[in-house]
Amino acid sequence: MTDVVELRSDTFTLPTPAMLEAAAQAPLGDDVYGEDPTVAQLEHLAAELLGKEAACLMPSGTMANLTATLVHCPRGGKAIVGRESDIYVYEAGGASVCGGVVYEPLPNRPDGTIDPADIEQACAVDCNDPQFARPSMISLETPQNRCGGVPLSLPYLAEIAGLARRYGVALHLDGARLFNAATALRVTPAEIAAVADTVQVCLSKGLCAPIGSVLAGDARAISAARRVRKMLGGGMRQAGVVAACGIVALTKMTGRLADDHANAARLAAGLAVLPGITLSPPATNMVFFRVHDDRYTTCSFISAARDRGVRVEELGHGRIRAVTHADVSAAAVDRAIQVFTELLAGPRTGAGEEAR
Amino acid sequence: MTDVVELRSDTFTLPTPAMLEAAAQAPLGDDVYGEDPTVAQLEHLAAELLGKEAACLMPSGTMANLTATLVHCPRGGKAIVGRESDIYVYEAGGASVCGGVVYEPLPNRPDGTIDPADIEQACAVDCNDPQFARPSMISLETPQNRCGGVPLSLPYLAEIAGLARRYGVALHLDGARLFNAATALRVTPAEIAAVADTVQVCLSKGLCAPIGSVLAGDARAISAARRVRKMLGGGMRQAGVVAACGIVALTKMTGRLADDHANAARLAAGLAVLPGITLSPPATNMVFFRVHDDRYTTCSFISAARDRGVRVEELGHGRIRAVTHADVSAAAVDRAIQVFTELLAGPRTGAGEEAR
Amino acid sequence: MTDVVELRSDTFTLPTPAMLEAAAQAPLGDDVYGEDPTVAQLEHLAAELLGKEAACLMPSGTMANLTATLVHCPRGGKAIVGRESDIYVYEAGGASVCGGVVYEPLPNRPDGTIDPADIEQACAVDCNDPQFARPSMISLETPQNRCGGVPLSLPYLAEIAGLARRYGVALHLDGARLFNAATALRVTPAEIAAVADTVQVCLSKGLCAPIGSVLAGDARAISAARRVRKMLGGGMRQAGVVAACGIVALTKMTGRLADDHANAARLAAGLAVLPGITLSPPATNMVFFRVHDDRYTTCSFISAARDRGVRVEELGHGRIRAVTHADVSAAAVDRAIQVFTELLAGPRTGAGEEAR
Amino acid sequence: MTDVVELRSDTFTLPTPAMLEAAAQAPLGDDVYGEDPTVAQLEHLAAELLGKEAACLMPSGTMANLTATLVHCPRGGKAIVGRESDIYVYEAGGASVCGGVVYEPLPNRPDGTIDPADIEQACAVDCNDPQFARPSMISLETPQNRCGGVPLSLPYLAEIAGLARRYGVALHLDGARLFNAATALRVTPAEIAAVADTVQVCLSKGLCAPIGSVLAGDARAISAARRVRKMLGGGMRQAGVVAACGIVALTKMTGRLADDHANAARLAAGLAVLPGITLSPPATNMVFFRVHDDRYTTCSFISAARDRGVRVEELGHGRIRAVTHADVSAAAVDRAIQVFTELLAGPRTGAGEEAR
Repeated sequence: MTDVVELRSDTFTLPTPAMLEAAAQAPLGDDVYGEDPTVAQLEHLAAELLGKEAACLMPSGTMANLTATLVHCPRGGKAIVGRESDIYVYEAGGASVCGGVVYEPLPNRPDGTIDPADIEQACAVDCNDPQFARPSMISLETPQNRCGGVPLSLPYLAEIAGLARRYGVALHLDGARLFNAATALRVTPAEIAAVADTVQVCLSKGLCAPIGSVLAGDARAISAARRVRKMLGGGMRQAGVVAACGIVALTKMTGRLADDHANAARLAAGLAVLPGITLSPPATNMVFFRVHDDRYTTCSFISAARDRGVRVEELGHGRIRAVTHADVSAAAVDRAIQVFTELLAGPRTGAGEEAR
Repeated sequence: MTDVVELRSDTFTLPTPAMLEAAAQAPLGDDVYGEDPTVAQLEHLAAELLGKEAACLMPSGTMANLTATLVHCPRGGKAIVGRESDIYVYEAGGASVCGGVVYEPLPNRPDGTIDPADIEQACAVDCNDPQFARPSMISLETPQNRCGGVPLSLPYLAEIAGLARRYGVALHLDGARLFNAATALRVTPAEIAAVADTVQVCLSKGLCAPIGSVLAGDARAISAARRVRKMLGGGMRQAGVVAACGIVALTKMTGRLADDHANAARLAAGLAVLPGITLSPPATNMVFFRVHDDRYTTCSFISAARDRGVRVEELGHGRIRAVTHADVSAAAVDRAIQVFTELLAGPRTGAGEEAR
Repeated sequence: MTDVVELRSDTFTLPTPAMLEAAAQAPLGDDVYGEDPTVAQLEHLAAELLGKEAACLMPSGTMANLTATLVHCPRGGKAIVGRESDIYVYEAGGASVCGGVVYEPLPNRPDGTIDPADIEQACAVDCNDPQFARPSMISLETPQNRCGGVPLSLPYLAEIAGLARRYGVALHLDGARLFNAATALRVTPAEIAAVADTVQVCLSKGLCAPIGSVLAGDARAISAARRVRKMLGGGMRQAGVVAACGIVALTKMTGRLADDHANAARLAAGLAVLPGITLSPPATNMVFFRVHDDRYTTCSFISAARDRGVRVEELGHGRIRAVTHADVSAAAVDRAIQVFTELLAGPRTGAGEEAR
Repeated sequence: MTDVVELRSDTFTLPTPAMLEAAAQAPLGDDVYGEDPTVAQLEHLAAELLGKEAACLMPSGTMANLTATLVHCPRGGKAIVGRESDIYVYEAGGASVCGGVVYEPLPNRPDGTIDPADIEQACAVDCNDPQFARPSMISLETPQNRCGGVPLSLPYLAEIAGLARRYGVALHLDGARLFNAATALRVTPAEIAAVADTVQVCLSKGLCAPIGSVLAGDARAISAARRVRKMLGGGMRQAGVVAACGIVALTKMTGRLADDHANAARLAAGLAVLPGITLSPPATNMVFFRVHDDRYTTCSFISAARDRGVRVEELGHGRIRAVTHADVSAAAVDRAIQVFTELLAGPRTGAGEEAR
């Protein structure tokens, strides 16, 4: 197992020894009664880092996003989301099921932004006309996974936030990898989160905690979120075990994300020169590429790499995604480049039609 | 009131004297007990006309569409719909609210079709992967209201039906104006409905019945629909009063839709020559046009026409819609043309930038 | 058919000639656009009769109740209802399905009341504790169908209303047969409805309209109800056809309900002397009785009566219900008594154990 | 803190050192990809102990119960539950909200059983009649928290299971404290779970794990449960950290529950002789008692005990609950008895009317 280069996702990061030790030492209590001091400490810390009044630990980013959506959208409310956003694509439509919320997915541009004009049109319905679902929330994702991991710029966020305020619609930020965005933009997480009503951050991706996400917002929203979390079954007892790892994630692990970005750039540079590969330079820790080689389909290429110990995955529209993280060293990146080089070596038999 | 030319919608059609007489004479019973003979007669007739095993009277097209969606989509199922379809835009997101169904709206092309490749992509998700909402239904609308009232061709319907079958997804047809489509295509309603699992037809638009739609499909689907209808509150007692009008609608009123189409063509021809108007020739009974005249916004133009006794309405994206129907004669069309002509007469002050 | 004595329900009442004539003459419009003058007239009249600001026509009592529940209860709210109420037993759990509302059914006493202490206990949960669904609405039914059709007294209604106000919970009144209650209590409908936030009244039961119910309340509630109605598919086009009958129902048909009550008393008196029958004297137009005769089960007794032209039905817990209404004359009641007498004549073979 | 005798709940148990060490040593993977070996081991172990094909780790018992309900009940299905069951009282009505499921709460007898005749009546509705929500699941809780923690007998479980099978309704067992029931009945957990379609067991109550419950059932049910869990946001990444504690809970902690039961008996014996206390002898690890003393309300008595370092809580209907668990020694029990003795010492001023 030690030989495998795991590039499928940064969700594969293992907890660090410091995290496991923190978990073993943490003062604990029953968090369903609100009495776990380590959870309280994590929530306080996260709120501070994100510049919000309050925060709430969640067992997953999916539940954090679902909860935020239910907090902002009443039954029959409309959630305006990106067509390529994780909240719409990968979270099983939970807000329609659990909340009677209507999704309005809008086209994402390649950098993950949504045309503000599209958002405005989705917001500008006559709220007195019962034909229309009521626009209640805009959700943006930064950096957006399925759009190359490119962070949204602060001016873009401000523009959409202004639009949201104008229409009385809440702005939620799916910041599963918010610290990667902050690292890339060289701003603080709070600067990114500032314009959002609620923001969720995963502790378990690049930050290496084993479990958990945090939802932050004002006191009223987080109080409502705790109610939703209980109903969904996200209330956990001695959750300090998880929170202790999260505290390490937020205090010790954010600084090293720049290394992951450097490794992603290193991987992209290595791939860019290979025949039959097209890619865009990565903005954070994700490299998306396509293989154009008659000998492979997307699927068989992934298989062949896997057989040689390098794991990547398909991530929509025939693209291959490779994600760098704490358990992928520069040497491992080089090894991946070597494997890809070997796979694409030799004569191609035909004109590089695109792999599907 | 008699002077008004009502072009806002064919939903304004009044019941004919024959309908009101039929309603007064109809044998009645309690349809919640399944004992209204006139309802049974209407349902039998509608099923036959649409080439389906069974049919079910509904108080509205909205309920017919909502019911079909709930019949086809389990909790968490995905309904693939047109971005510009009435079922998505104008029905308050009912299937998310009442059924935990996730909408996946796909772009409509100007003729109301959806690119089959988009539909296929929406269907082709890994059903074993719990991240994804399960594709359960494709809904097509013919002719599609917000796409100019253009009927979908039989080959297009067949193509999508084939795709639906291949992926084990149901095909629902929102045929609110199916008889208009059949008239325009010179085919029978059953030929259009043939490939659909369920189809809904409004009795209350061009066919002039005061109330009601019919949902048709196989016996199992319609039996399930009756259960959903009861829950939604669509079970009506002596519904034969409504059904009697519907029988007249289906037997006496379908033949005259060609007149409405001729009147729409007449109106379009009259408008086409006016300065500052752009339009496409109508395919059925709807004329969509835009006004480019510095003296008007879309809204003020509609107001000005209204002041002169001609009623039209905005129907998305700054377009004006005029719908012909049984209560609009050729003379009334001419009167409308005259009013529009007067409104646009005289010198325009500037270059025709588009009205909003 | 003319020979049948239809006692299964007052929902079998046929529209009167005056209603059908009113329907044929009524000025109509598209009520989805809010332009049907007859609907407006009915809604105004109903609001006035019920002493409320506003009212809204519905295709059924089920939809009126469902809509009221959705208006009062947010997602996750709790609806406190009678265990034997129609809203809980016969309406397919619609508020859980369409609204994410939790039912809390409480025991009904034989007269249809719920112990105020039970209601108070259901209301008195800690609203800040996310473990509990939030009490949002109490629904009472008067007279309550499955509890013998006994009207709730004004003091009882006032007591529950006081309790509701104290806990910030809405009070809805399912007054499907409210005019029967008013007749029995010799008060006005408005006196009964006074303490309720919303009240629904069926036009289609004893009042003989073919279709429709009315939901009344303050302007805000009814405005919200119109939104819910649209989503459920209860918006009807030229609904004046139905409303015209409803106007006749509300203006011409309420006075004669005393006859139905007299006929129910006549029927009860006739049955009371028969061997093997137990019953309570009726309070309105419903006679509930049990048959204790070794020759019959409840089911076979109903069948035997049906074979002789008298229709009654089982209505829970082995009871038989006979309902009087406009289409049941005193002579028809006598005929029913005669049939029941014949069925129970002759020697019983065993000790009258209870029929099931 | 060390002086406090924590009797509010066994949910306050802290993880043992062996658990924390196991968490630190466990081989981990991304369980959302199904690659965490420790989770797999826990699920295998739990399935085996409960005699089921498969099992699934959940972040809470609430989610385990909610998921089971959604697996068994389609939209509009009816969940038959105890009026005093945790699933109905304390889980925020989640199945109505997230699943459109209708609860039918039935009266619990003092020992937690529900009269089989009541269950049968709730099951025996005409499934073809669209008026009725379809009975889909019966849920029993053993031992039932709010009914004194009395285990259901195997014959009772078998009787209800037979009834469930006869009506085609699933049987779910909320076995949050199933191991306590097994200990009290001197049977294996599998013997209790045998008749249930699904069963949930909490790792975090008497068994001392910090987080988590397990849902077990046949392969099809657990596969469906994984889908629901993902949607609710219960998919956790390196969940092996939690599962490792759960393995210790299931292998090392079940044997000692007898001690908790002995301590509960010790506490009950000590309380029984006090003036003004009424109680029933405990069946497992819960002592329910009432205080009848003019000097106290239920609430002030709990406060007074708390001030002296003994924590108990109100648990419905004015009862006080004291729960023994791994962090409550026999000496701590004696200390609690002493505190209660002191509180009730001295002359009572009046006739012991019941505290509220």
